[in-house]
Amino acid sequence: MIQSNNTHSSSALMLLSGGLDSVTALAWALEHDYTIEYAISFTYGQRHIREIAAARAVAHHYGIAHEVIELAPIQGSQLTNLGNIPQRRDLSALDEDIAPTYVPNRNMIFLSYAASRALLGAPSILIGGWNAADGLNYPDCREDFLAAAERTLQLGTLRPFSIVRPLIEDDKPAIVRRALALNVPIQLTWTCYLGGEAACGTCDACQLRLSAFRSCGAVDPISYAISTEYA
Amino acid sequence: MIQSNNTHSSSALMLLSGGLDSVTALAWALEHDYTIEYAISFTYGQRHIREIAAARAVAHHYGIAHEVIELAPIQGSQLTNLGNIPQRRDLSALDEDIAPTYVPNRNMIFLSYAASRALLGAPSILIGGWNAADGLNYPDCREDFLAAAERTLQLGTLRPFSIVRPLIEDDKPAIVRRALALNVPIQLTWTCYLGGEAACGTCDACQLRLSAFRSCGAVDPISYAISTEYA
Repeated sequence: MIQSNNTHSSSALMLLSGGLDSVTALAWALEHDYTIEYAISFTYGQRHIREIAAARAVAHHYGIAHEVIELAPIQGSQLTNLGNIPQRRDLSALDEDIAPTYVPNRNMIFLSYAASRALLGAPSILIGGWNAADGLNYPDCREDFLAAAERTLQLGTLRPFSIVRPLIEDDKPAIVRRALALNVPIQLTWTCYLGGEAACGTCDACQLRLSAFRSCGAVDPISYAISTEYA
Repeated sequence: MIQSNNTHSSSALMLLSGGLDSVTALAWALEHDYTIEYAISFTYGQRHIREIAAARAVAHHYGIAHEVIELAPIQGSQLTNLGNIPQRRDLSALDEDIAPTYVPNRNMIFLSYAASRALLGAPSILIGGWNAADGLNYPDCREDFLAAAERTLQLGTLRPFSIVRPLIEDDKPAIVRRALALNVPIQLTWTCYLGGEAACGTCDACQLRLSAFRSCGAVDPISYAISTEYA
């Protein structure tokens, strides 16, 4: 569901990972006059914990409050299991239904907690950066999942929750175009799955990000550990 | 959805709070030949943390594995806010839609985590003690919520999850009758919201429990801090 009404002012919570997608969704929300009560990030044992610092920097950039919710580690993913580091893969491998970097049921956990926190105050709107590209390999980023989660939240809380998902039809180049048009502080975002000093440039997430910038004829302003000219 | 097939043997996770409801649901599941891979209890800042020990004792009684998942504290409930202790209320006050002991979106959080853990192994069945009595004041115990949550789990995980809820049509006396018929170790269960040395006998949960035993002409074997003859 793409929200196109840009004249309202509704109190919302932002699910902000610190990646380019959620940061772009935040910029979209502000552009569309949502009042962001605060942004939430989650720790769940992710290898790329430094995305939390990125989220904090982005929230500071936009002058909105930021809260980190520390969850019990989520097991069973290359993103959180220390033994299995995400390897460079051919992007065509992304045709599979669920990628090895899928974090089991992560988004339902995030949405459940976000709604629980929202019940302490006024917001009945949760905004996030779910998108069509991620939906290819992460079922918990798809429209049907989000619609079902929205309904579940409404029934479990008796509050008219809506999950606003402005990027749900976007592929990664479309998100980069939005980010550029919205003057998103791209240099503050963190996408790499590995969470090293600089982005690795080779994991699935880095490959997709670099490919998206290239297809837009734009240069990604963050630092990479490898030369990305031909990455 | 009441499961009436008692000849199958399906691997399941049990959501076990340690209260009479979930313990009775566990006894029902074993009677109906479910294979309980393990039982899960959650800490979420609840005042009655001693229910965890009750759950452990019940799991031991039935010879099943037991795991405790430590969640970030859930705010905004008399059950978890230290400043607001659940008071004795007239049971007629339970007509309201959401009781002050409602823990915001608790069951969606629990189900999300349980499914996440289930994805590490075989079980696609989650069993719990949700019932019609709790549904009166806790929307996240109702059939419509559980059906929506089940669908959300299926879509978010691409696994054919089912949420088995054998007590969903039961009031509290019906649960006591089931517990007695199934030889549930009632003396091991913990229901009181306060979590003191003995059950308080006066909180909503104690009142409902005592009333249910009385209406069945049975005696509750646990200890109460007050005389419960006329409670």
